[in-house]
Amino acid sequence: MTRAHRQAVPDEDPERIGFTDLGFAKVDILRRMRQGFPEVIFCQGKSPPQVASIFAELASRGDIVLATRATPEQFAAVRAALPCARHEALARCIVWQKDGASPPDTRLRAAVLAAGTSDLPVAEEAAVTVGCFGFGVERVYDVGVAGLHRLLAHESLLRSANVFIVAAGMEGALPSVVAGLVDKPVIAVPTSVGYGASFGGVAALLGMLNSCGSGVTVVNIDNGFGAGFAAGQILRLAAATR
Amino acid sequence: MTRAHRQAVPDEDPERIGFTDLGFAKVDILRRMRQGFPEVIFCQGKSPPQVASIFAELASRGDIVLATRATPEQFAAVRAALPCARHEALARCIVWQKDGASPPDTRLRAAVLAAGTSDLPVAEEAAVTVGCFGFGVERVYDVGVAGLHRLLAHESLLRSANVFIVAAGMEGALPSVVAGLVDKPVIAVPTSVGYGASFGGVAALLGMLNSCGSGVTVVNIDNGFGAGFAAGQILRLAAATR
Amino acid sequence: MTRAHRQAVPDEDPERIGFTDLGFAKVDILRRMRQGFPEVIFCQGKSPPQVASIFAELASRGDIVLATRATPEQFAAVRAALPCARHEALARCIVWQKDGASPPDTRLRAAVLAAGTSDLPVAEEAAVTVGCFGFGVERVYDVGVAGLHRLLAHESLLRSANVFIVAAGMEGALPSVVAGLVDKPVIAVPTSVGYGASFGGVAALLGMLNSCGSGVTVVNIDNGFGAGFAAGQILRLAAATR
Amino acid sequence: MTRAHRQAVPDEDPERIGFTDLGFAKVDILRRMRQGFPEVIFCQGKSPPQVASIFAELASRGDIVLATRATPEQFAAVRAALPCARHEALARCIVWQKDGASPPDTRLRAAVLAAGTSDLPVAEEAAVTVGCFGFGVERVYDVGVAGLHRLLAHESLLRSANVFIVAAGMEGALPSVVAGLVDKPVIAVPTSVGYGASFGGVAALLGMLNSCGSGVTVVNIDNGFGAGFAAGQILRLAAATR
Amino acid sequence: MTRAHRQAVPDEDPERIGFTDLGFAKVDILRRMRQGFPEVIFCQGKSPPQVASIFAELASRGDIVLATRATPEQFAAVRAALPCARHEALARCIVWQKDGASPPDTRLRAAVLAAGTSDLPVAEEAAVTVGCFGFGVERVYDVGVAGLHRLLAHESLLRSANVFIVAAGMEGALPSVVAGLVDKPVIAVPTSVGYGASFGGVAALLGMLNSCGSGVTVVNIDNGFGAGFAAGQILRLAAATR
Amino acid sequence: MTRAHRQAVPDEDPERIGFTDLGFAKVDILRRMRQGFPEVIFCQGKSPPQVASIFAELASRGDIVLATRATPEQFAAVRAALPCARHEALARCIVWQKDGASPPDTRLRAAVLAAGTSDLPVAEEAAVTVGCFGFGVERVYDVGVAGLHRLLAHESLLRSANVFIVAAGMEGALPSVVAGLVDKPVIAVPTSVGYGASFGGVAALLGMLNSCGSGVTVVNIDNGFGAGFAAGQILRLAAATR
Amino acid sequence: MTRAHRQAVPDEDPERIGFTDLGFAKVDILRRMRQGFPEVIFCQGKSPPQVASIFAELASRGDIVLATRATPEQFAAVRAALPCARHEALARCIVWQKDGASPPDTRLRAAVLAAGTSDLPVAEEAAVTVGCFGFGVERVYDVGVAGLHRLLAHESLLRSANVFIVAAGMEGALPSVVAGLVDKPVIAVPTSVGYGASFGGVAALLGMLNSCGSGVTVVNIDNGFGAGFAAGQILRLAAATR
Amino acid sequence: MTRAHRQAVPDEDPERIGFTDLGFAKVDILRRMRQGFPEVIFCQGKSPPQVASIFAELASRGDIVLATRATPEQFAAVRAALPCARHEALARCIVWQKDGASPPDTRLRAAVLAAGTSDLPVAEEAAVTVGCFGFGVERVYDVGVAGLHRLLAHESLLRSANVFIVAAGMEGALPSVVAGLVDKPVIAVPTSVGYGASFGGVAALLGMLNSCGSGVTVVNIDNGFGAGFAAGQILRLAAATR
Repeated sequence: MTRAHRQAVPDEDPERIGFTDLGFAKVDILRRMRQGFPEVIFCQGKSPPQVASIFAELASRGDIVLATRATPEQFAAVRAALPCARHEALARCIVWQKDGASPPDTRLRAAVLAAGTSDLPVAEEAAVTVGCFGFGVERVYDVGVAGLHRLLAHESLLRSANVFIVAAGMEGALPSVVAGLVDKPVIAVPTSVGYGASFGGVAALLGMLNSCGSGVTVVNIDNGFGAGFAAGQILRLAAATR
Repeated sequence: MTRAHRQAVPDEDPERIGFTDLGFAKVDILRRMRQGFPEVIFCQGKSPPQVASIFAELASRGDIVLATRATPEQFAAVRAALPCARHEALARCIVWQKDGASPPDTRLRAAVLAAGTSDLPVAEEAAVTVGCFGFGVERVYDVGVAGLHRLLAHESLLRSANVFIVAAGMEGALPSVVAGLVDKPVIAVPTSVGYGASFGGVAALLGMLNSCGSGVTVVNIDNGFGAGFAAGQILRLAAATR
Repeated sequence: MTRAHRQAVPDEDPERIGFTDLGFAKVDILRRMRQGFPEVIFCQGKSPPQVASIFAELASRGDIVLATRATPEQFAAVRAALPCARHEALARCIVWQKDGASPPDTRLRAAVLAAGTSDLPVAEEAAVTVGCFGFGVERVYDVGVAGLHRLLAHESLLRSANVFIVAAGMEGALPSVVAGLVDKPVIAVPTSVGYGASFGGVAALLGMLNSCGSGVTVVNIDNGFGAGFAAGQILRLAAATR
Repeated sequence: MTRAHRQAVPDEDPERIGFTDLGFAKVDILRRMRQGFPEVIFCQGKSPPQVASIFAELASRGDIVLATRATPEQFAAVRAALPCARHEALARCIVWQKDGASPPDTRLRAAVLAAGTSDLPVAEEAAVTVGCFGFGVERVYDVGVAGLHRLLAHESLLRSANVFIVAAGMEGALPSVVAGLVDKPVIAVPTSVGYGASFGGVAALLGMLNSCGSGVTVVNIDNGFGAGFAAGQILRLAAATR
Repeated sequence: MTRAHRQAVPDEDPERIGFTDLGFAKVDILRRMRQGFPEVIFCQGKSPPQVASIFAELASRGDIVLATRATPEQFAAVRAALPCARHEALARCIVWQKDGASPPDTRLRAAVLAAGTSDLPVAEEAAVTVGCFGFGVERVYDVGVAGLHRLLAHESLLRSANVFIVAAGMEGALPSVVAGLVDKPVIAVPTSVGYGASFGGVAALLGMLNSCGSGVTVVNIDNGFGAGFAAGQILRLAAATR
Repeated sequence: MTRAHRQAVPDEDPERIGFTDLGFAKVDILRRMRQGFPEVIFCQGKSPPQVASIFAELASRGDIVLATRATPEQFAAVRAALPCARHEALARCIVWQKDGASPPDTRLRAAVLAAGTSDLPVAEEAAVTVGCFGFGVERVYDVGVAGLHRLLAHESLLRSANVFIVAAGMEGALPSVVAGLVDKPVIAVPTSVGYGASFGGVAALLGMLNSCGSGVTVVNIDNGFGAGFAAGQILRLAAATR
Repeated sequence: MTRAHRQAVPDEDPERIGFTDLGFAKVDILRRMRQGFPEVIFCQGKSPPQVASIFAELASRGDIVLATRATPEQFAAVRAALPCARHEALARCIVWQKDGASPPDTRLRAAVLAAGTSDLPVAEEAAVTVGCFGFGVERVYDVGVAGLHRLLAHESLLRSANVFIVAAGMEGALPSVVAGLVDKPVIAVPTSVGYGASFGGVAALLGMLNSCGSGVTVVNIDNGFGAGFAAGQILRLAAATR
Repeated sequence: MTRAHRQAVPDEDPERIGFTDLGFAKVDILRRMRQGFPEVIFCQGKSPPQVASIFAELASRGDIVLATRATPEQFAAVRAALPCARHEALARCIVWQKDGASPPDTRLRAAVLAAGTSDLPVAEEAAVTVGCFGFGVERVYDVGVAGLHRLLAHESLLRSANVFIVAAGMEGALPSVVAGLVDKPVIAVPTSVGYGASFGGVAALLGMLNSCGSGVTVVNIDNGFGAGFAAGQILRLAAATR
């Protein structure tokens, strides 16, 4: 925001006001304390230097940083500052973890299901996000309802996973079927996969909101991150009460 | 239309112009010849005398008359003129058949499936319509995808029926699942059952239009008649080539 | 469905096929086994005798029965069959529990928040549903964002509850604010409260789907039951790993 | 999906589990058995190697392979693996048939009608799909309702075809007119042809769903494949009962 | 508006300011001079006394008064003041004409077509409005596209009328067909007749806006008055240049 | 909320927590301090006793109370508690003011314009609200753009008022025209007056949001209160800097 | 359509069947006889050779040819075949007229008004179309309602033109104002000019459909051709009765 | 508009008719007199020479010129004519002020808040517009409701600013929270920031229209200019009454 006029700033001490003011962004350094996970960077609409700058600020104050919807250019800018950051290309995420972070607790696991091959980027965004919470992830892709035996072949996973994330485009029917088979929380992610009357994911979104499967909850179209975050919070709650 | 000004009428001989002009309606007496089934009366928005008048005109010129969306009052008016007419109350239909009409050919059968109890009026409208074409009908109700075993229990019907009509509200996922299990035409009927983001059947309609089940075709929301008519045409084609 | 033609029934033994066929409904008697909670009756569009009949069937085979969107007439029919059933009038629910059921585990608690007075029926539906899972429920009503201090006054609850259900109509902003303050799962329920461009809850639904609060999941408009069920599953998972 | 973490796979034997797991896709090798036609590849959103890989797997296990929405690049990748595959460029399809496949049964024929020149890609997709089922296809293009005599000039075809596929954009009125003239199944395909208030095919879709022509069924906007598949199923049923 | 606070009024002389201020309404007494037709009263949402009061004011200053969407109660109030006013019940209009008004010029004629019986109230509103301009009106009702011969039977009218008003609900295809047959202006009126995906006339409206018939113009859903007014203006122009 | 389970209450002293907890509502007693006007009661969806109870609580702590969307029943309940409360019937408001409140400052004035007679309830709601802030209000009703001279007759008011509230339904064009004539803030209120493609006020809302008149701001459909409140804040700001 | 399979053709003689079959198009050679104007070519989605081929066929059989939505490439192809064809670049039209065609009858005139500079391409398409009917055209551009004096400055034109075409984007208020000032037919053309909640012209379309100006008729968004064609038909009717 | 036919022009003297006719535009030279601010140029859809030409005309007759949605090319054209014009790049505005214009009255100030970094272009457009009215502007960016402490840190500004402009995308909740904290006018600007069910800013727009914060007014999506203009009018009113 080089050309913008200077903003009002009440106080320059981040520790006291709870955020670092970068001019174009106020990095929330209390988020981890309040929500249990540091602020996550939504890269869309930010320049590579902006992403790198926020990323570095968060890395300097925490154990893990996650950036979503990241382009290769944004990743290049981040890696220049933090060589250990890694790019989950299919998931379009950048992840950085402090050395010596505790290994995942794979006894608690999320299952990430996708109805079709085109849903993979969204499903992977969810899987990477759950991974950042330190839990196990099992992926089961291309198990749409047109061939139910592909889903039913994973019967043991349906019994053993602790939370389910189900991504689907088109008519979005997979979460309803999964919810009818399991006794764990099911988070549905509509994807924008489809054409014509799919209206960019609206058909799948409506299908999931109207699911006859009790207890299915839904996130925004293509919001793999949101589903992964919700699953992470659920598993963390389970871990905490363990 | 007692108070309306008189319409232009080109010719008073129904046989020559192909319709009987009742003033408020032009009864199409060539419909059976062109489409293989006489004109069907859509009762909504017509007065009981209007329905009875059109009904009687069609009965005087054909073997079968079907009226849909009929109220008890409309049925009473019809029965006064045609004592043999019968009211299919759940389906909201009035049916009249000439004595001596040929018995149904039950070797060709339509299966009518409904996802939930509230879908029954629509499913019954479809079933009654197929019945008017003279074919067999098998009903399988309350087999929504939240409990797939209820559907799978009818495996032999899924193999033996010749055409499938599948009515569902809410997310409308049942046709996709059925289409994945059978090798016959599947006609999907979205119903207005649901609330909130079902938008009066729109969610189910979009789900069915975006079905990942190949070859699913769709009719208007709550249009059980249309689905039954299409199934009747398909079975008649099959019977004709037999 | 007295007047409907008889349906195809593959087998009359409920234990073998997994459901009891009442003609107008196939009561799923395996639901508790698969999903951890018996089938819940959605009363809208069913006659009082139908509700009572399904209710009695479920009571004969389980420990708890829940019916939602119940009218006083439907409750009267149920109570005639099961005198111990109770009507949660504001929540529009009927609940029956077998004598000697285990007392709620109130160490695990859901907080149910509502933005305004008109959201109470939906919030109560959620609260009653969580209660049926046997967990504690804390209600905090009329804490909309126009007067944030009313919410912040419940700081200790915001820290201690294990899962949050947040019901709001109009612009539906409350879940975003709550999600920014807690580190537990937040389930948002849009309500149809509002007028004009609220479009029967669509504005609140969209607001919640686009929440900037990470990990907020959403259910259908006015679907308090769905939110309560999801919260119940989350708490049960936490209880199981305890 | 080279960079994605490995998925859960329950069993490596395709014959036993009913699908071949390619990592990014689970090729359904039972589809022909269940639905009478092998899995069809929807190319949109898949890379040329992915398309070629799925195509080759299906060719190794069946008599015919169909891929829709294929680009020239995807065709090039397929032809490198299967030199006999052919590109139906206007229809955007790739077709491969085993040598010695039975010749089409042209006694049963679908008529494919298009309202305007811009509807041709969709109409051709439908025509190619019907052809893959082995039946005859008659094309009648640019017969929109603004000049009815162009349609009426094909009177003998209107009497002789066994099923009708009618593609139209803009107001989508052609299926209603055709349905009023024939006694065979009519499948309507709305196309995205138009501008302004055509809303990418929505106007045509709504027109077709509300058709006053009895028994018209509808598929998704631009879904020529779906219409062709439905017509193929109908003709196959007719052939089977022949 | 008895209880409302008094409004600002700049001047009490209607002749000078061009309107009569009734408090709840400002009756435009220059409308006939500017637009060639006096202000028309839209009765919906007005009390019977309000309608009667505006009606009387207009009658005192002109040759003709037209009120649309009038209930029997509103008509009773008007007739009490003006015994010669007549109620066109089907059209829901009230009409009053000064004695000695010139007889209609029936050499110039509008044809009013309606697709179905339920479209009659809208079609009649259009017909009555054209009549108020003093021109001839020919009515042709129930000529929907499902039975084209009913329309084609009126070939001589299609050649002789000077302007066409075409009312249709459901898919609204009739104006396109009419426009393809005539060389005169065609005004399309979508009606709210239909159900499900007709969305209260939206499907018909979109169909007419996207008509492939050149030069079709469209008015609001159920706006028979608007179509009649436009036709009246067109005929008046023709009469003026005669 | 007699039957609901008791809510969590952090503290019983309203002065300390800033609200009075009535169980079904938390009356915000700091609103006047924060926003300059006490909490306003939106009566829709509240029972008469609930309205009366909140009304009395607010009256006991302030100088003025305003309730909107009030029915006669709700007013009766309020008047029983506060005999001085008055019912603005057309505006559907209840107003109570403490004796000895300062008289309005009529030097600062809002002009409230309405396009048609049916817009009066909304316009009056706005006018009553402005009045509660203590400023002058000028009403100018039935000045829609179809007869511009009716608006232009109020030229002196257009020059002298300090803020403009413009209510209109149908196409909502009046605010654009007004904004082109004045140099003061213009607040547009779309009303639900209209039919067909007015979609309950959406057409007017969109028209106002897209106004070519610079600086027009918009409130929700039928939200006369919101427009009046915004005008009141603007006038108060002007008064404060006076 | 080189690669498409050959279509059914009932008869090769254009004179007998009423159209010339070019394979990809059926050129309607009876259109002028039926509708008074030859078929108009909608260029969008057609290749330059296709446009040139249809254009040449129409030129060989008539006095005038009009093509709309033409690109420079399409014009180049047409000019290669018909050197006298001219490109109306701003209107995106191609026009060809036979030598010796009768000069325009400029006594009958259409006024084409546009609200803003960005509406010019649509307004010009309308103006060129009217010109093809042989009537006079007066253009009045950039007269939006934000500065009414710009419109009122053309008072004499408002009195003298015989039909009005009014193009506007954004809130589309101009037709209502014009209709309030004239006693001639007003055809409104919504344009896609605007952003945000203009939704590509929907706001303007709805505004025009709900116009409080009596008798305003509307065409599709950006459909300048349709408005011009309707105006041409109206003027031709006036000329014929002259 | 070089190729368009010449328009009707009633009079060539701008002073007399109140506008300068540039052919493609009628520059309103009375706007400042009527509305208190000269006509503002909306650059979208205009060529650089058109923008420069209108800009120069306005500069020759006034003290300030503002152009919005300007590209670098349009700025280059303007600067060639007016070297003192400056480009506010982030705001996409061009501003020119006559030498010796009075300095801003910074005692009256607007606060411009933005919820996220991506909302900055819209917020800056608002800020630049307010600046053109000559008042003070305070910017507070990236204070979305997910971290309320960032907003609350600016408590003194919330108390001291005279009017608030609040830009937000996604769920658009920030204006509701701000309105609950201040006693000054709040103008909400929805932005198109978001994805999926944000529908290009519709979710934020609906959220703001349904705000539970009393008196929030709303402008079109991304219409920073409109918000700034409204704020400028409000401050000018305050300054005038000072």
